[in-house]
Amino acid sequence: MIERLCVIGVGLIGGSVARAARACGICGEFIGIDRDPENLVRALALGVIDRGSADVALAAEADFVVIAVPVGAWAAVCADLKAVWSDTAVYTDVGSTKLSVIAGCRAVFGTMPPNFVPGHPIAGAERSGVGAATADLYAGKRVILTPDAETDSGALARASAFWQALGAKVSLMDPAHHDEVLAATSHLPHVLAFTLVHLLGRKDEQGEIFQYAAGGFRDFTRIAASDPDMWLDICLANSEHILSLIGAFGAELAEFANCLEQRDAGRLRHFLSNAREARQRSIERMDN
Amino acid sequence: MIERLCVIGVGLIGGSVARAARACGICGEFIGIDRDPENLVRALALGVIDRGSADVALAAEADFVVIAVPVGAWAAVCADLKAVWSDTAVYTDVGSTKLSVIAGCRAVFGTMPPNFVPGHPIAGAERSGVGAATADLYAGKRVILTPDAETDSGALARASAFWQALGAKVSLMDPAHHDEVLAATSHLPHVLAFTLVHLLGRKDEQGEIFQYAAGGFRDFTRIAASDPDMWLDICLANSEHILSLIGAFGAELAEFANCLEQRDAGRLRHFLSNAREARQRSIERMDN
Repeated sequence: MIERLCVIGVGLIGGSVARAARACGICGEFIGIDRDPENLVRALALGVIDRGSADVALAAEADFVVIAVPVGAWAAVCADLKAVWSDTAVYTDVGSTKLSVIAGCRAVFGTMPPNFVPGHPIAGAERSGVGAATADLYAGKRVILTPDAETDSGALARASAFWQALGAKVSLMDPAHHDEVLAATSHLPHVLAFTLVHLLGRKDEQGEIFQYAAGGFRDFTRIAASDPDMWLDICLANSEHILSLIGAFGAELAEFANCLEQRDAGRLRHFLSNAREARQRSIERMDN
Repeated sequence: MIERLCVIGVGLIGGSVARAARACGICGEFIGIDRDPENLVRALALGVIDRGSADVALAAEADFVVIAVPVGAWAAVCADLKAVWSDTAVYTDVGSTKLSVIAGCRAVFGTMPPNFVPGHPIAGAERSGVGAATADLYAGKRVILTPDAETDSGALARASAFWQALGAKVSLMDPAHHDEVLAATSHLPHVLAFTLVHLLGRKDEQGEIFQYAAGGFRDFTRIAASDPDMWLDICLANSEHILSLIGAFGAELAEFANCLEQRDAGRLRHFLSNAREARQRSIERMDN
């Protein structure tokens, strides 16, 4: 049971944490911190939080703190939090990259505070803002926690129980492995989708060709509707893994092009069949 | 009004043509030709067609013929049809590439029969087979017809009216331009999705990383669940445009990687913002 939950950054992700925690009745009071006063007013009006402030000092009143700010704002929020850090509260975050979050934390605190449990809920949407927050965003979704040797086991247990109460399936993972896996399943696909629409948008400024796009194109490019600033932060924070995968993808695409240039139907069929099998395997894994 | 509609290839696309034409009451009788006897039995049992045969000679009884075979089977079906070609019927097809269809036709007939109207409904699904056929597959979808100078205007008018009766929006286009546009909006995205899952499937044979994939990945890779044989045919038939776009995509991806390597936040933000704008433009165009 949490007496007072504090969400720092009351957008889609943070707002949904508050809504979900309220729905399952595990918290007494909900406080929110956001540097955008209009967003705070909206969050209060929507009943997502009970009290709000632009000043991070309010977090000192909470016994459980979820930091849900963009990866690029992490260092600044950490620096602000340091002055009001509580040794009895549990802190967790939702950042899409974990090594950068841990490095930012170490830079500010000199070490990893044992009561901070880095985390990443694999959930989201192209929509953003507290207005899009829902109580069921994490139901059935995976949350990856990436504690290190310094993390207090009690804090880890409380963070884990928190996400499970919200309906999530919790996994523990090494932070470097997390960043490698997410580069493959999320960051590279986003880069490819952004690159495709960038290319087509440039080739065809009138958008004539888009008239003849169908549902497959819409699905394929949906993730390119995501917030550019958030994705700038993620790309910079996980650039090493992303660049390595861009290289591997380029080589794979060149192999396909080479087969096509040579009209090697056997190898093309093999490539396409293997790809389809991998896609089927991925769906089975996701559903487990 | 059509007395007798013949569909050659009673799969998802051909079966949906028959179902849609039956639903809107514009045909008297429905006949189907398919080289797979089990599929014919299924199509008859489902009431998609009234009579069926594995022999293309049955098509001679029809006054409107829709050829819905994979692009790779086109030349063989053309050759079979030549012996029973009717000068009074109207023929149209549904192939995803149009230059290859026209070239195949010319190779068999020596010229383009004036009563053949090449066409391409921009509709489909990852599912296949007559069991997946629906009466509303073409409702609100675009159908591109690519007549040439030899095409009879009466045949074009009848093909156009046919698709409009099925609820489709008909556009006319030069066949080469069709192939260029579809390479961008459909063929390249398919190649990219197949390549991504091929790469990830190879990197991770246990599928561990797929456990941490989310809805964005599922949407992005949905088109990689499409039939590999069909996509082999399309890639070979439109290889020139596809190879040119693979090259352009590779250059665009290298530009992104270069900005990321240099940690050039300004150019990266510009790239991602422009991409998102293009995606929004594409959705608006699709919905018009």
